[in-house]
This record gives sequence, C-alpha cells and structure tokens, in this order.
Amino acid sequence: MIRGLTKAGLGDVGNAEQYIALAAKYGFGAVDIDMGSLTKGRSVEEAAALLRSHGVVLGAIGLTVQWRTTEEEFLAGLPALAEQAAIARQLGCTACTTYILPSTDEPAAPFMASAVRRLRLCAQILGAYGIRLGLEFVGPHHLRTRWKHPFIWTMADTLEMVAAIGEPNVGLLLDCYHWYTNGLTTEDIARLRPEQIVHVHVNDAPDVPVEEALDNGRLIAGEGVIDLVGFLKALKQTGYAGAVAQEVLTQQPPQEPAEERVRRTAAQYDRLFAEAGI
Amino acid sequence: MIRGLTKAGLGDVGNAEQYIALAAKYGFGAVDIDMGSLTKGRSVEEAAALLRSHGVVLGAIGLTVQWRTTEEEFLAGLPALAEQAAIARQLGCTACTTYILPSTDEPAAPFMASAVRRLRLCAQILGAYGIRLGLEFVGPHHLRTRWKHPFIWTMADTLEMVAAIGEPNVGLLLDCYHWYTNGLTTEDIARLRPEQIVHVHVNDAPDVPVEEALDNGRLIAGEGVIDLVGFLKALKQTGYAGAVAQEVLTQQPPQEPAEERVRRTAAQYDRLFAEAGI
Amino acid sequence: MIRGLTKAGLGDVGNAEQYIALAAKYGFGAVDIDMGSLTKGRSVEEAAALLRSHGVVLGAIGLTVQWRTTEEEFLAGLPALAEQAAIARQLGCTACTTYILPSTDEPAAPFMASAVRRLRLCAQILGAYGIRLGLEFVGPHHLRTRWKHPFIWTMADTLEMVAAIGEPNVGLLLDCYHWYTNGLTTEDIARLRPEQIVHVHVNDAPDVPVEEALDNGRLIAGEGVIDLVGFLKALKQTGYAGAVAQEVLTQQPPQEPAEERVRRTAAQYDRLFAEAGI
Amino acid sequence: MIRGLTKAGLGDVGNAEQYIALAAKYGFGAVDIDMGSLTKGRSVEEAAALLRSHGVVLGAIGLTVQWRTTEEEFLAGLPALAEQAAIARQLGCTACTTYILPSTDEPAAPFMASAVRRLRLCAQILGAYGIRLGLEFVGPHHLRTRWKHPFIWTMADTLEMVAAIGEPNVGLLLDCYHWYTNGLTTEDIARLRPEQIVHVHVNDAPDVPVEEALDNGRLIAGEGVIDLVGFLKALKQTGYAGAVAQEVLTQQPPQEPAEERVRRTAAQYDRLFAEAGI
Repeated sequence: MIRGLTKAGLGDVGNAEQYIALAAKYGFGAVDIDMGSLTKGRSVEEAAALLRSHGVVLGAIGLTVQWRTTEEEFLAGLPALAEQAAIARQLGCTACTTYILPSTDEPAAPFMASAVRRLRLCAQILGAYGIRLGLEFVGPHHLRTRWKHPFIWTMADTLEMVAAIGEPNVGLLLDCYHWYTNGLTTEDIARLRPEQIVHVHVNDAPDVPVEEALDNGRLIAGEGVIDLVGFLKALKQTGYAGAVAQEVLTQQPPQEPAEERVRRTAAQYDRLFAEAGI
Repeated sequence: MIRGLTKAGLGDVGNAEQYIALAAKYGFGAVDIDMGSLTKGRSVEEAAALLRSHGVVLGAIGLTVQWRTTEEEFLAGLPALAEQAAIARQLGCTACTTYILPSTDEPAAPFMASAVRRLRLCAQILGAYGIRLGLEFVGPHHLRTRWKHPFIWTMADTLEMVAAIGEPNVGLLLDCYHWYTNGLTTEDIARLRPEQIVHVHVNDAPDVPVEEALDNGRLIAGEGVIDLVGFLKALKQTGYAGAVAQEVLTQQPPQEPAEERVRRTAAQYDRLFAEAGI
Repeated sequence: MIRGLTKAGLGDVGNAEQYIALAAKYGFGAVDIDMGSLTKGRSVEEAAALLRSHGVVLGAIGLTVQWRTTEEEFLAGLPALAEQAAIARQLGCTACTTYILPSTDEPAAPFMASAVRRLRLCAQILGAYGIRLGLEFVGPHHLRTRWKHPFIWTMADTLEMVAAIGEPNVGLLLDCYHWYTNGLTTEDIARLRPEQIVHVHVNDAPDVPVEEALDNGRLIAGEGVIDLVGFLKALKQTGYAGAVAQEVLTQQPPQEPAEERVRRTAAQYDRLFAEAGI
Repeated sequence: MIRGLTKAGLGDVGNAEQYIALAAKYGFGAVDIDMGSLTKGRSVEEAAALLRSHGVVLGAIGLTVQWRTTEEEFLAGLPALAEQAAIARQLGCTACTTYILPSTDEPAAPFMASAVRRLRLCAQILGAYGIRLGLEFVGPHHLRTRWKHPFIWTMADTLEMVAAIGEPNVGLLLDCYHWYTNGLTTEDIARLRPEQIVHVHVNDAPDVPVEEALDNGRLIAGEGVIDLVGFLKALKQTGYAGAVAQEVLTQQPPQEPAEERVRRTAAQYDRLFAEAGI
C-alpha cells in the first residue's frame, strides 16, 4: 500500500510543486490533486517529470462530470472527461473517484437508474485509458435524512450499484469514516477482492456516539476512535496494493501550518502501518 | 399491427387448443399464453403446428424469473428462462414481458440497482434467442402508495430504466390503461421509435376520475373513456407492427361466456382499428 | 424516407451554405457534411438555423475516431468524438457512420477483437447524445484481396459484428453498391428491422460482370444496372424512414458542374422513388 | 496459491471420491472435475460435503457450451450452463474455463465476432452465479497451422479478446506450456493484475526446440525444461491466490498407476513452490 495525501484537512499546501514536495518530505508516495493545478503552467510531460522527480504518484483524480443533475450538464461534461482521462493516463494515474450522497431531493428509483447509466458511460470512457472508477459510499447518519429521499449509504448497496453499472473497471472508494459510521466490521473489508477497491481514504472520528459523528467533523487518522489498525489489516488481507490517502473533512480550516498537519499525519501513519504489519 | 388476446378478462377460454381456435374464429392473429399450457401433452413442434394451423402467432410470454425478491430466487429461475426462451424461439415468439409495480416495500434506490442488474441478465439470455423484453409501467394511482416506498410508474422513468439496462432488446410493454392513468398524450406515444415498443395491451377505464381508476377495474377496450382511437393512431405513427392484445383485469371473473367476451372485443377492435385507419 | 446528398461524385459544391442551398433547390431534405465546414465561421446555433432555413437536415456525420490503427491514435480521437457528438446533437443529427474494409494487413482475428472493443466505446459515447452508429460493409471484389488478410464484407458478417459490439444504437450503413456486389437480394433487406439500418447510400454500377465492378467506378443512382427500385421497395418494407443519400465514388471528379449532377440525381430519384411507390 | 489437480495425465484416478481422496492424500487442495461425475449418485449437498470432508475445493469446471460451431448448438447449451453454474456455486467453485485453438477452419474475423458475442453471454450467465470465465490461449506451433486460418495464440491477443468481451468476470487461464511455447517472459506474467488470471495449469516440456513442442507431448511439471520457478514467482508477484493445477496432456495414457503420478507431481510441487518462495 502507498501512503497518500489529499489536500482535505491540510490547510494551505501551496502550489502543486510545494504540495508534492511536502508529501515527499514526509514519506508520502501518492498525492490526490486536480489535474488543472498540476498542469497549470507546465506541459503534461513536465507534470509527469515533477511527480517522478519527487518519487510521488498521482493517487486519484476526481470525476468532474456532473452525473447528479440534468442531462444537459451531464453531456456537457463528457468531452472534458475524455481529455482528463488522456492526461491522467500520461501521468500514470489509474484511479478516478466520485462520492454518492446518502439522500437526494430526486425521487430515489429514477435517480438510481440515471446514475447507473451515466456512471457506466463515465467508466467506459475512463476504462479506455486504463483508469478505474471508485464509488464512495457516505455513512454519516445526519446526511441520510439531509435531503428529501433516502438513497444509498451502505457498502453492500454500493457494491450492488457497481454490479448494476456492470463495467470491469468500477469499484469502491473505501473511506474508513464511512466504514465506521456504517458500523461495518473488518470482516466486511476482508471479504472484498482487491480489484473491488479502487482507492482508500483514512481519517478519524471523535469520541461521540457513532450516530452523531459529522461528515465534516473528522480528525487526523489515528487521533480518534476508529479502529484503523483493524481497517488496515483487513485491507492488507484483501491484497489491496494501492494508495491510502489521508482525507480529513473539517468545518474550519486547521489553525496550524500545513507542514505540521502532514508531519502529524505521517507520525500516525508510521504507528498505524507498523501495528497493522504493513 | 396484429390483433391479439390475453386470457385476462375472458373467463374460461378452455385449453390451449380451444383458446387458439376461439382467437382465430374472431379474427385475432396473436395469443398470449404461457408455454406450459401450450406444450402440455404436445411437443414443441406440435405446438408450433397448432398455432400455424389456426394462423395465430404467440404474442408474448411472461417473464417467469423472480427479479423482485431474493438473489436465491432470482438465480433459481435462470435455467428455466433459457429453456423457455429456446422453446419460445421455436414457436416464433419474439416478445417477453414483465410489469413494474409503482411502489415497493424495499428501499427504492438499491431495489432499482438490483432490478437493472437482474433484468439485464434476463434480457441478455432472451436476446440470444431473438426475444425482446418489454417492461410495463403501471399507472393506477392507488398502487403508487400501496407499498412503502414509491418506485416508478411513468413512461419517462421506465425508458430511463431501459437505458440503464442498456441492452438492445429491451423496450416497453405499452398498456393504454397505464398511459391513461399517467395522463399521457398521443404525442408521448408518437415520439417513440418502433423498436422501443415490445408489446401492447388495450382495455378501457370506467367513467370515474382518473385518480380513482383501479388497476383491476378495467373494461373491454372501446367500452370506456380512454381515447383508444388516438392511442392506436399514435402507435401507427411510430411504425409499430406488433401485437395489440386485449387485457382486461377485473375483480370478478366475467359473468358471460368467454366467446361472448371475445366477440364483444372483436367488435370493438373492428370499430377502433377502422377509426384509427389501421 | 428522406432524399439525401453526400458530396461524393458531385464535384465542387461550394461552401456549406451553397451546398445546402443546392440540396434544397433540387428537393433533397438531407445533406451529409462534416461538422467542421458546417460550423466554420458560424456558431452551432447559426449552423442549425442555416439547415432549418433551407428545410434540410444533417443526414449523417462520419466517425473521425481512428479505430483501425494504433491504440494511441484511437485514444487521441475520443475527446473530439464527444465534442462532435455534442454538436451533432444540437444540429439534430442522429447518425454517424464508418466503413469496414473487406481486407486488412493486420491479422484478422485480433483486428476484429480490437475493432469490436473500440467501436463499442464510440457507440457508447455517441449513444449518450442520441446518435446511432452505422457500419458500412464494402462489397467490391477487388478490395477483398487488396490487403493481406480477408476481413468481412457480407451483410451477415457485419450484423454479427454489430451483435458482438452489443450496443442498442449500432446498425448498418446500407449502400446499394455493396448490396449489389455481394449478390444480395431484396429479401435480404426486407428481413431487416428498421432500427438495424442507420443510414443508406445509393449509386449505381456499370454494366460489367459484378466481380469487376470497382469501388470507385460508380454511376449516378438509376443510370446503371443495380435494381434500385427493388432496393428502395425492400427498404420501404422494413419501415426505414431515414435518409437515402446519393454517394457516387469515381476515379475522376465529374466534368460537368455540381448543379448538373444534382439535377440528374434528382431526376433519377423522382423516377426511382415513384416506381418504388415511396 | 492452492495446489491443484486435473485428471489429465494421471491415468485412471477412479471415481470422484477416489480422485478427491487421492488429491487430499498428497496435499492437493483443489481438483478440477466435471460436475456430472461429482454429483453422480449424490446430491449437490453431499458433493459439497465430500469435498469439504477432504479439505479439497473445486478448482474449475469446463465450459460445456459449444461456442465454436453453429448457432443452434450454441443456443442448445445455454440452459445447461445456467444449471451447471447454479450447482458450481453451491459447491463453492468460482472458475470456469475454455480453450481457444490457434487456428480455425472458419474465416477468422467473423469467427472472432461470434466468439466474442457468445462467450460474453456465457460470462454474463456465469457471473450471476459468482463464477469467472478463464480463456486459455494455446501456444504450440504445430496447432497454429493445423486448421485453415490463423486465429489467436498470444497472451496479448487473448487479453484483447477479453477486453472485446468486456465483462468484469473474464480473464485468462494461464498454462505454462502456452506461456513457454509463446516465448513469453516472467515479466509478461508479473505485469498482470491478479483478477486477470482465473485459473492456472502447470506441466512441462521436453528438451526439444520450442517450435517442436507438441501440445500432447507434455511432461510432469518440474521434469522438463520450462522455467517453472520463474513462472510461479511471477504469479506470486501478481497477487494471484487461486489454484495451480497440474494438467499433463500426453499421446498415451501413463504406464504407471495414478497414485504414482500424483506422488511424483506432489514431489515436484514441493520443490518448485519452495524454490519460488510460495
């Protein structure tokens, strides 16, 4: 497994080069970064060289296609998807991710039918470029009733959605916060085949009842109550060999400098990975 | 278009041979009949010969796979589906249909994901044998709240489900009762491409507010308030050339003999088809 | 059916506006034109207005994705495909076509596997925009041995390739020259379902043995030996309602002005369509 | 990885129970056996219990659907496929395999199109039951010209065929004999993702020029010239965790008793697995 960063929860990490250098300095081998900022002012070849020179890979890109709203918006995003996929491929990236909110203002059944059709096409385009699509289920209880109709939030339902999409390159983005807020066990992870996991997020939860854990109330991985050692051990058991990226959603930007956040994260990763035997 | 019968609303039509003979006698060119009763006591070749000798084709068969309940029940039905499809093909049948209830006790979103996955496989198996799968949307208002969660009942949502399934041989079973209870127009039909229509049911509604039209409170086509001439004209406009089968769901079996029901239906078909210029 | 033009065999038809005006003047309701020249110096809305003002629709666009060569070239063409499809949709175009050469320098079996995979993705992208993909089989005998290995040239094999692609929006581009050089009958066409035909080309063959009819030795439709009345009658029988576009491949550009070619074509269309009862 | 047996090259292994007991006695954890002989005279539950009691799993079943000949034969085999898949699932089997001959009497391109379409449906049915389909490429040189037209025999072309099929549950049956006769390297294996490998066969080649290695002239794995240690090491590198089954095709049945063959095979497995660090 590759230790990875996303920008979430780090505060101001500077420009792409500074962010990549910071990751490398603290032993992270992967960064999640939007391709716009990575290729701003540099060619794709230069961006690839920048990553290479720091020994860092591109962990995952976010799906920019708007699959949740109107057909017009969905269609409007497809040409850019093909272009982004072409660039991501040149940068050696093999993962693209999107999240699924647990409730929706749209009627749930037709929304699922649309989502399946639209995400299938996204997956088909990504697949041509050797990129997999990871669907992130979102567990926090308050979001399940935030919009009008319940949608899906469990891993089982998300795997059913993956099956409905039916493409070989679709799997899960597994975030330990959603695993925790769903009340899942390490066995639930260990049962997965490695190709079912496209990307992994880690972070932690405060010591409150699980029903009260807020989506944007997360802590640095290892500084809360989630059994991250069990989570990582179970991941290892599946054979998963991709990136494990910190992603800490918070209400306020952190007070301390980005480097201090990265340092704290790295220290926790050292401990957690060691305890998990990775 | 081929005038067709289903058994619904006819009362006791006798055995397969008697039913087919009755259809032929009153000018119907297609019957919907389950293959079990058609091949009971006769080989597939004999069943084909029976249909041929009366100049009647097999309009559509019903999907027997249980796609609405457990995975076990779904899987258990697949071997029989392949066998039925093989027989239907030998009998010259090219349509298989299933209905979609407008509400469900299952959570709607995962139920849609399962339905898409399961019906796709059914369509794939049927397609190998040259058989198309028609999904019937069900419009009556009372059924929309009959079970716990709303599912889908509009033609637009059903076409979205067809698109989510994504197979070339899936389309609609268009029943005028559901067209009527959905408040659809003739333009809504005329916009369809012929291959989007797999099968057609006709019947009629009593003169009650549309919201009160009960699913099992139907009348013989032409004896109620539905604009069947408009419905048929619009069908013709699409280029649809398949069967138009009477299907009259009622609470009680009819009092009069089956032959009288068929005769009344035939008389209405004569008038309606003439007025529609078919 | 809509009478249509392609530029092939017409000589210099001028710019997009002149070409469209010429088509309209002689009663053609569809033109095949590349979107580059159509939108050169005008917005998509203006291009749509130009077509509309002449009562002419866009018959079909050509597939620009390079599916026959390297994976790099294939992938490089996908972003443009999504963009073209988006524009074509705004212009009301619903057909995109490509031809399949009857022999190839590549080993035939893996070339078919690649072609199926690549054309499937093209079809999936086009399908999102409501556009169908028509595959043109190419019949002339001299091309069957022109390259190292035989590939496919029959309608049956092309339909098998369509089935291998497996998408709902893929069918045939039916060119009477390839129908003729394949020795097919009117029954072979009449057996097709309308949705299996995406686009139609007409032209004619000189009075030479069919084995000697050259791909680029074609005549104006109606001026040669092909049974075009039978061809059109059979098309009508299928229910096909799309464009029938003249496409006359010749070794030399025509000597006479484009308008004279269009006039002669229109005169033949008048006669042929009348005899075919269209 | 699980040490496995097929019956090929073992001579008379007796009935299902004797074969399973023999496997267990010599430390093999998987057997490939047709389900007919496994369930002959016992229920599916009893067959599962028999396997369980010996600590042996069912490695893979063979695809019985005839996908290489007529459409009639293909369709006739589908109902049995669904039934076999249902039983295999109850027996805990997750792999089904078929081989692809390197030449064919059929024209190569349409044969590939049919093969893709037919194997896709087989994969779709198997997939519903949690079973993967492994395609075995066949390398021996003499078979490449045995029939009229070259088809495919390389791993790369087979992976292209897997991509053309496009289902999530299709991959390779990797047989070291075909790896060897294709002149492939350990890097070619190491580059695979584990889910691309459905099943593995091992055996060995005599010390003759690779072009002369006959398909049915194989030796017990470890007793010939194939670099089986490299093969196994590369497999391990991919993360493959399935069965590695001996399969020794020979012209004559072995002279020695089956148990002696199994003993010799087990001894070689001990050495090879140890040297490969598995």
